[in-house]
Amino acid sequence: MGKTVSLCGWVQRRRDHGGVIFIDLRDREGLVQVVCDPDRQAMFEIAESIRNEYCVQVHGVVRARPEGAENEALISGKIEVVCEQLTVLNASVTPPFQLDDDTLSETTRLTHRVLDLRRPQMQHNLKLRYRVAMEVRRYLDEQGFIDIETPMLTKSTPEGARDYLVPSRVHPSHFFALPQSPQLFKQLLMVAGFDRYYQIVKCFRDEDLRADRQPEFTQIDCETSFLSEQEIRDLFEAMIRKVFQNAIGVDLAQPFPVMSYAEAMRRFGSDKPDLRVKLEFTELTDVMQDVDFKVFSAPANAQGGRVAALCVPQGGQLSRGEIDGYTEFVRIYGAKGLAWIKVNEAAKGREGLQSPIVKNLHDAALAEILKRTGAQDGDLIFFGADREKIVNDSLGALRLKIGHAPFGAEQGFFEPGWQPLWVVDFPMFDYDEEAARWVACHHPFTSPKDEHLDLLVTDPGRCLAKAYDMVLNGWELGGGSVRIHREEVQRKVFEALAIDAHEAQQKFGFLLEALQYGAPPHGGIAFGLDRIVTMLTGSDSIRDVIAFPKTQRAQCLLTQAPSEVDERQLRELHIRLRATEALKA
Amino acid sequence: MGKTVSLCGWVQRRRDHGGVIFIDLRDREGLVQVVCDPDRQAMFEIAESIRNEYCVQVHGVVRARPEGAENEALISGKIEVVCEQLTVLNASVTPPFQLDDDTLSETTRLTHRVLDLRRPQMQHNLKLRYRVAMEVRRYLDEQGFIDIETPMLTKSTPEGARDYLVPSRVHPSHFFALPQSPQLFKQLLMVAGFDRYYQIVKCFRDEDLRADRQPEFTQIDCETSFLSEQEIRDLFEAMIRKVFQNAIGVDLAQPFPVMSYAEAMRRFGSDKPDLRVKLEFTELTDVMQDVDFKVFSAPANAQGGRVAALCVPQGGQLSRGEIDGYTEFVRIYGAKGLAWIKVNEAAKGREGLQSPIVKNLHDAALAEILKRTGAQDGDLIFFGADREKIVNDSLGALRLKIGHAPFGAEQGFFEPGWQPLWVVDFPMFDYDEEAARWVACHHPFTSPKDEHLDLLVTDPGRCLAKAYDMVLNGWELGGGSVRIHREEVQRKVFEALAIDAHEAQQKFGFLLEALQYGAPPHGGIAFGLDRIVTMLTGSDSIRDVIAFPKTQRAQCLLTQAPSEVDERQLRELHIRLRATEALKA
Repeated sequence: MGKTVSLCGWVQRRRDHGGVIFIDLRDREGLVQVVCDPDRQAMFEIAESIRNEYCVQVHGVVRARPEGAENEALISGKIEVVCEQLTVLNASVTPPFQLDDDTLSETTRLTHRVLDLRRPQMQHNLKLRYRVAMEVRRYLDEQGFIDIETPMLTKSTPEGARDYLVPSRVHPSHFFALPQSPQLFKQLLMVAGFDRYYQIVKCFRDEDLRADRQPEFTQIDCETSFLSEQEIRDLFEAMIRKVFQNAIGVDLAQPFPVMSYAEAMRRFGSDKPDLRVKLEFTELTDVMQDVDFKVFSAPANAQGGRVAALCVPQGGQLSRGEIDGYTEFVRIYGAKGLAWIKVNEAAKGREGLQSPIVKNLHDAALAEILKRTGAQDGDLIFFGADREKIVNDSLGALRLKIGHAPFGAEQGFFEPGWQPLWVVDFPMFDYDEEAARWVACHHPFTSPKDEHLDLLVTDPGRCLAKAYDMVLNGWELGGGSVRIHREEVQRKVFEALAIDAHEAQQKFGFLLEALQYGAPPHGGIAFGLDRIVTMLTGSDSIRDVIAFPKTQRAQCLLTQAPSEVDERQLRELHIRLRATEALKA
Repeated sequence: MGKTVSLCGWVQRRRDHGGVIFIDLRDREGLVQVVCDPDRQAMFEIAESIRNEYCVQVHGVVRARPEGAENEALISGKIEVVCEQLTVLNASVTPPFQLDDDTLSETTRLTHRVLDLRRPQMQHNLKLRYRVAMEVRRYLDEQGFIDIETPMLTKSTPEGARDYLVPSRVHPSHFFALPQSPQLFKQLLMVAGFDRYYQIVKCFRDEDLRADRQPEFTQIDCETSFLSEQEIRDLFEAMIRKVFQNAIGVDLAQPFPVMSYAEAMRRFGSDKPDLRVKLEFTELTDVMQDVDFKVFSAPANAQGGRVAALCVPQGGQLSRGEIDGYTEFVRIYGAKGLAWIKVNEAAKGREGLQSPIVKNLHDAALAEILKRTGAQDGDLIFFGADREKIVNDSLGALRLKIGHAPFGAEQGFFEPGWQPLWVVDFPMFDYDEEAARWVACHHPFTSPKDEHLDLLVTDPGRCLAKAYDMVLNGWELGGGSVRIHREEVQRKVFEALAIDAHEAQQKFGFLLEALQYGAPPHGGIAFGLDRIVTMLTGSDSIRDVIAFPKTQRAQCLLTQAPSEVDERQLRELHIRLRATEALKA
């Protein structure tokens, strides 16, 4: 108060009021009100000339706002700056939209990203992103981790996702790949004895994009030697707890609950359950084996089939139309229908149940359903009966949909807040029906449980991995594993994955060699920074926490990348376009 | 002392001495001696089985080494660990070389990089690199800079160096480029109002590699709004001073000397003069205009010619053979010869001078040479006479060669230590004779000096830029400039560079648009992290401060990248190989 200050910023708004000009001056920290009195004529003339988004410099004196003119919504709402000198640093043409317009399409926002980034929400998001990254760096530094850069131009090993390729000019017909993750390099750094590594690093996947994916994304990539799975989880649980505390003042549960993959699938049909939704599956496979109702009995008796129920408290209120809507919804996940029972009056037995399927179920089955679900009068029970994956996916999605609907909060089975957990004991392998072979659930460098080593050969489907995912409110924040540090185990896993010795050597020879030289026990984790910041800022899309994101068509609307290039450039890279060829022919 | 400890690490060496086994156990912090007594039989048997580079865990008690057995060379040299329990975590086959072998070829080192990285020097280098990066982050954080990530998949704008291209799968015939620097994005962030930005970021240039270049390299990339050139330089000078203090305990000169580009070229023939070498050029162009010796008079009278001398104290000791060697050396830089005069006895005038060229110079010229160079008896004067660039390059290289030779230190004109400076006032443009047009010295976004704005049109060659390089011991550590923040100036610079309005719009339309919306005055700098760490560690090559570098043929010997890829991958990217086409035809 009373201090002379010099401020640089942008004109958010200019108002003329009683012969005085008020400027809302904006910089990355916020707004301040600048008062331009007409008694300083030169300055006032400049004030009259300025428009929204002009970049200006103000010299003036801070004073309290007159009583009644305070603005509680602003940090600076109790003061204003009396302008003594005003300089236009740069004029602005009229922006294509108002910065405070909340109804802009994403196309408009991304095309004019520079203006879009001036909006307080985007400034907040990117500043918070920075704070999160710095918290992570400070924590890992304290824990003895060192940031080591790994190559961006690396080797293509077509596994998992599709690689982005980079043609080599020096080596005709040869290509680099952009890394999908620094996985192998960080393991090599452990073998090289760096003990604890991290990197906040760009990774690349050339996949068709879903809402929360980008062609390039940022990973907090970590690896450590000599620690057990438990110790690794504790270390990174503490990191995330610290980030949430310092970034948004939230204390996450201590410790995070730990749940096996099997339990998560059984109770929630998902390996990243949203524990805010208090609904759980009820297992009914055994109960339905002897009912005279094919829809239930067939999957109940089939290998890999499942019958489960989801009891919705007070779901009896749902209209027939709403139930039909849910029936449509589960079809997305492959369910052929959605059976249900309304529990009107349980004490009446069969008579108290309203449902198209009750007539197909014998009394013992009905009694067991009521008993296991614990259904009360007024509840609604949904059923899933199909191959396990379809039941889990469809009933799991239904659980979330109902849980997140207003009904969930009203009935008290949606509990807002932050619900982290660890999901552990993942299977080593999934069976790929199409390819008729086992594929790695995590990646091929994940260690099996010590007691499951034999299963690699005898029964891969039952072999569990030392893998773990950190899950928060139904999102996977990070995932990792203890890695294989013995060459012979790594070879066995390659064999289980039907990667023959020649292919293993060609693709991963350098890893197999490194494992021979006293590789230490090691493991790690990778977190999705974009996703963490999206959660912390409550953003709708990861595009709101990335300065210059791509669209879902993998395009930058601002710079118009990708773009056509000169023929000369292609010739230097020893490639030609297929389209051109086609035109010629 | 007396504490029970648990250590994990690698067996550097195992010695059997008087029935006791001594293990030098190595981790990233260093070595410690482990003593295995035969009285613990199970442990001792394991100790007998271990070999170099085995990864082991030791439980034991710390005690003082017996008197006389201390090792001053080790931090842990006064203690040893008496082993109680020894676990082999992983065995090792015999490494292909001894880790302490200092004679390995670079090919061997890069092929077996994982073992090479176990060497203490490499561990030190990468740890120091990390410390430097963290110092930079801490400093910039204190100064209000925030790290914002810019895209890796961006637009190709073939200016300056060659781009690495990435074919798009979604958009046939379109390509992303990997960034040569985040230049335009960081300027856009300033226009967006982020005020202070930094990023430690990978950049890419597909150039034929010199000793100190890599296809991917790491830049400390910074930009700030609202500061003057002087303020920007002060800010980053303080950063580098802090890095040198904290990383290697060196206090750099405060403040760094500032020298104009013109002065640097005049005195040292280089825009990155190594000030440790105390030799300077003597200007003789004016003196040689009227001599009857074409070799000197022709360039002295030609537009853009230069005649200069380099006086080497006590250079008279140099043999004829050594002088011939230097004559060969300057040919690399385009010099057609290397004239010289040995000053045997200056007082004797012409008679006291020994030289093949003295007979061609009149007395007044000789007197002026002696006067301007200040040559003493015993000194040797070299001459450069040619186009300015050739004189500067050749005599500048000669100055360094002689300065760094043992002779330089002996004669006291090489002063070891750290000699930083700022080189400023660069020209805006260089004339490209081949293309017959002006090209940007820095880049096309550099601001001309305010008082030189008119020269953009009237005399581009005389137009100076608000550009600055930080130079240390003859290396450019970083370079930057105040940028153009007015659209009309940017358009004029594009015109001066013969980029027409259509091309400007197509390539840089998004920048020109952004500059219209109240772009703030801004500027910045980018430092080469690899180079800074190379200097700090005294390494021979930047490959010694990068975990997984490429060779000078842009290859990774460890992973064998780049490599061939599947035809399917190429088809998805809508490209084909030229080689394949050629084979078909």
